[in-house]
Amino acid sequence: MVTIEECQDILDKKLASLNLPDKPENLYDPVRYMIELGGKRIRPSLVLMGCNVFADRIEDAINPAVAIEMFHNFTLMHDDIMDRSDLRRNKPTVHKKWNENIGILSGDAMMIKAYEFLTQCPAERMTDVVRIFNTTALEVCEGQQYDMDFEAIPAIEIREYLRMIELKTAVLLAASLKIGALIAGAPGEDADHLYAFGRNFGIGFQLQDDLLDVYGAPEQFGKQTGNDIVANKKTFLLLTALKLARGETFQELKQWMDRKDFDRGEKIRAITAIFNKLKIREITEGEITSYYDHARRSLIEVRCDAARKQPLLHFLKTMQDREK
Amino acid sequence: MVTIEECQDILDKKLASLNLPDKPENLYDPVRYMIELGGKRIRPSLVLMGCNVFADRIEDAINPAVAIEMFHNFTLMHDDIMDRSDLRRNKPTVHKKWNENIGILSGDAMMIKAYEFLTQCPAERMTDVVRIFNTTALEVCEGQQYDMDFEAIPAIEIREYLRMIELKTAVLLAASLKIGALIAGAPGEDADHLYAFGRNFGIGFQLQDDLLDVYGAPEQFGKQTGNDIVANKKTFLLLTALKLARGETFQELKQWMDRKDFDRGEKIRAITAIFNKLKIREITEGEITSYYDHARRSLIEVRCDAARKQPLLHFLKTMQDREK
Repeated sequence: MVTIEECQDILDKKLASLNLPDKPENLYDPVRYMIELGGKRIRPSLVLMGCNVFADRIEDAINPAVAIEMFHNFTLMHDDIMDRSDLRRNKPTVHKKWNENIGILSGDAMMIKAYEFLTQCPAERMTDVVRIFNTTALEVCEGQQYDMDFEAIPAIEIREYLRMIELKTAVLLAASLKIGALIAGAPGEDADHLYAFGRNFGIGFQLQDDLLDVYGAPEQFGKQTGNDIVANKKTFLLLTALKLARGETFQELKQWMDRKDFDRGEKIRAITAIFNKLKIREITEGEITSYYDHARRSLIEVRCDAARKQPLLHFLKTMQDREK
Repeated sequence: MVTIEECQDILDKKLASLNLPDKPENLYDPVRYMIELGGKRIRPSLVLMGCNVFADRIEDAINPAVAIEMFHNFTLMHDDIMDRSDLRRNKPTVHKKWNENIGILSGDAMMIKAYEFLTQCPAERMTDVVRIFNTTALEVCEGQQYDMDFEAIPAIEIREYLRMIELKTAVLLAASLKIGALIAGAPGEDADHLYAFGRNFGIGFQLQDDLLDVYGAPEQFGKQTGNDIVANKKTFLLLTALKLARGETFQELKQWMDRKDFDRGEKIRAITAIFNKLKIREITEGEITSYYDHARRSLIEVRCDAARKQPLLHFLKTMQDREK
């Protein structure tokens, strides 16, 4: 059985030797740049691990795994333009290093490349693989659209927020596992259990991100904490606080959110104090645990030797324990 | 045999009943808007006509035809952002009616929708159809990138320009026909002849656009003439003039191109006079005729009853005679 680390290794090697075209440089250099920025390669690793649950041979899953990583990076390239982000992994984003037009068009090319790799899978699996990929790709766009829409709406429901992160983040993790399973020839029902595993893990994972922005140790989290608080980002924590706060606490929270001039540290401390009072940390941790437990139960449902599930179980535990 | 008009009719009906999702509105309304803007539906019609050369039944080609139209409209949506165009078919472009972020993301969704329709084709044709589509889609991006790159380069060769319009415009027309042929089960060689027909027609068609911008009658061309001249757009006409002009004529052409302040009508008249002196119209017409003849010869090569080629021959003639 391959571990997540072995998958990451296989994929780093594969991604380093993709042989993308040289010209036009302004189209393909940004694609190379995004791929070389690195990252944990979690999604494509899940394709390989999903395949490995049902088959010893994972070679047929490598191109579809590359497709998933390409697609993910395409979404990052376009999201960075839409979110006006200047940095990604401490390096300039594509539209900053080149320009917006190049960011748009290289992103487009990267999505097409994703389909090119995806369709280099065994012909008899193609229909199912492409179908789940199409559905998922559209859902990721829907998630990004809801994320942008929500920024302009004063109040959103927690269930709407959870649906948004499910679409924006979780379904791609879920589909990665399912595509791997389908390539291994897994029965539809078992592929769907892996999908549920990925979906629940993905929501839990995103809620952890929300939590770590407030309660992570900056040196471990790898980035400054409190960014979401400063930006009034509608995270699970803030939405829960807005729902639970009453009277003076609610007024204080609203006032901090409305202030245009403030000291960054002071705002972070004040809102964190409100979160503490409302037990937001405990509530969020409970929610995360519940999603991780759900993921674990979905994996139990998969009909195969327990040993074949070990790498995914180990991966889930590592993710749940992460502090960054 | 179906004519181009019958194909346009079939497609207008199909495109009017696509049943796109309602939500999120900001993602799917712009997709609907682009589709409803209309247009001549030439590319998807060529899918149906390419199929009809080899098969009486064209139903299997309808979804791939919709895919081609979706893909074409996705490129228009993103190109309009990159080119800062405010109007398309006399209506506001998507990024003007909504905003740039929505233009980027709806375009992305439209491309994924294209793949969704494309892969609703008979399973045994899928691999070949998706392969030519992927290659073509990347080439269209390459063409758009060269087009943008060329704007920043003082001198480009005519053959580089021809390659650019081949990539940006002609290969999609060519691939439309080839996909139709593949769906009908045509032999590879014959599908390639139809591809060559579309490729040569496409280059000729684009050169006609260049010509009509200068020599078209505005009331027939449907838009103001001379826009390319005013913008110093590196068309086949301008590049040929720059290559042929000598001495004073060359100086005069350069001076008009370098001027920042000028009367629009005066610049158009002056440069048109230079074109006339250099016989640019005749040269361009000769080039167009040569591409259309090449297209016709490619169609002759296709092994089937002459009657099956009639609708495409008729279409080609109509296009060649167009004055708008």
